[in-house]
Amino acid sequence: MKIVRFVAPKGSIHWGIVEENEIKETEGLLGSFTGKNFVLSEVRLLAPVEPSKIVCVGKNYVDHIEEMDGDVSSLPKEPGLFLKAPNALADPEDIIPYPAFTKEFHYEGELAVVIAKPMKEVPEDEALNYVLGYTCAFDLTARDAQREDLQWIRAKSADKFCPIGPWIETRLDPTDLGIKTEVNGQIRQNSRTSLMIFSVRRILSYISSFMTLFPGDVVLTGTPSGVGELRRGDVVSVTVEWIGTLKISIGSQK
Amino acid sequence: MKIVRFVAPKGSIHWGIVEENEIKETEGLLGSFTGKNFVLSEVRLLAPVEPSKIVCVGKNYVDHIEEMDGDVSSLPKEPGLFLKAPNALADPEDIIPYPAFTKEFHYEGELAVVIAKPMKEVPEDEALNYVLGYTCAFDLTARDAQREDLQWIRAKSADKFCPIGPWIETRLDPTDLGIKTEVNGQIRQNSRTSLMIFSVRRILSYISSFMTLFPGDVVLTGTPSGVGELRRGDVVSVTVEWIGTLKISIGSQK
Repeated sequence: MKIVRFVAPKGSIHWGIVEENEIKETEGLLGSFTGKNFVLSEVRLLAPVEPSKIVCVGKNYVDHIEEMDGDVSSLPKEPGLFLKAPNALADPEDIIPYPAFTKEFHYEGELAVVIAKPMKEVPEDEALNYVLGYTCAFDLTARDAQREDLQWIRAKSADKFCPIGPWIETRLDPTDLGIKTEVNGQIRQNSRTSLMIFSVRRILSYISSFMTLFPGDVVLTGTPSGVGELRRGDVVSVTVEWIGTLKISIGSQK
Repeated sequence: MKIVRFVAPKGSIHWGIVEENEIKETEGLLGSFTGKNFVLSEVRLLAPVEPSKIVCVGKNYVDHIEEMDGDVSSLPKEPGLFLKAPNALADPEDIIPYPAFTKEFHYEGELAVVIAKPMKEVPEDEALNYVLGYTCAFDLTARDAQREDLQWIRAKSADKFCPIGPWIETRLDPTDLGIKTEVNGQIRQNSRTSLMIFSVRRILSYISSFMTLFPGDVVLTGTPSGVGELRRGDVVSVTVEWIGTLKISIGSQK
């Protein structure tokens, strides 16, 4: 089942379920069907959820740690986490202005998890019961600010630094999905979620050991190798197998 | 004017304005008066706001940088920021369980700013026009996790690591306020906001240069010297001049 949030042709915001080229409207997220239908190609999709927080895993693919000059002889024992604040959310097809404060604006394509119900101190083997579904995400990053600042706030949490979508796929096993990022049609990242150091269930269980996850909260699971710079005018997409493709464009500097 | 959010004796949640020992109920935050009054001593105060994000300044008093063995010969040129997620909020008089994952649980008493209206790219000299008011806050910190983890998430954003309150004082000049932290009645931090490296207006203007602040968002302005460890059973309070006192207790380990 594919859950979408969208702007109808008349400008109002709705929730619904995608079936082929049709959206069946629901009363809010996971509400009952209203009986009203929309044509998928005639609406503008929004980030499919409104989280209270976005928790991200920093170093979760060995090949990405290597390309960032990290030490892979001793891999992390626990997931390395950071936050993005909700102001960072952006929509599918959004145009992300090239940020004025960076000269190294990078894409990182990722699988994102959306939480279904309050989750606190949940063991690994029960963690996936708390998942609503999965979507695609970009962890956009100002690499220079990431090196220079006290913590990764400007680097990771500036406005529109977290595009997600196009929808939440609810029926999915996250353990071995292809993940691919393209810039202007050229493949730059091409990996599988089976190569994650920490699995989705391990990540969620770890976060929940000290931090309550709430319905709608989003967890980004890390990026494989192949990250790189974005330039004005670039079109970037991340495709996760069985979910779909999230595409954004980079605008000129504000 | 002192804005409170509180639980009435019958268990319902309300907003209001404190006048001496009375609360005049309002329809939501800053709504009109309902005509109903409550006795301040008979209600339980809540964190006075529900932010979409909590942005914190990491090193904003020279004496605190010194005590953390930081280099004070070259002070930061921009405010060093980090985030706390909303799950970290705690209420006045709350009992904070001693977290299972740390052996170094520290208090940091701070002045907190509450935002009134959307704030993006606002110059310093206009920044205070976007402030609703001020309250007291603790930036509770797991010092060992702060040293060990990739970023300060477990260290700063675990559940209940951000008590704020007791109310939002709307009529206040933040530039030279006394700030004092006591543990079990003994003074541990005693400073003035005039000793901040970055002023409130500078901090807000800087954040807004890359990150939209929304109504109700909270900004913690940093802690002076005198931070230290908490033990089970401690009663800790932070008092900011002209605002009041936020008091919490440390419970036993969950």
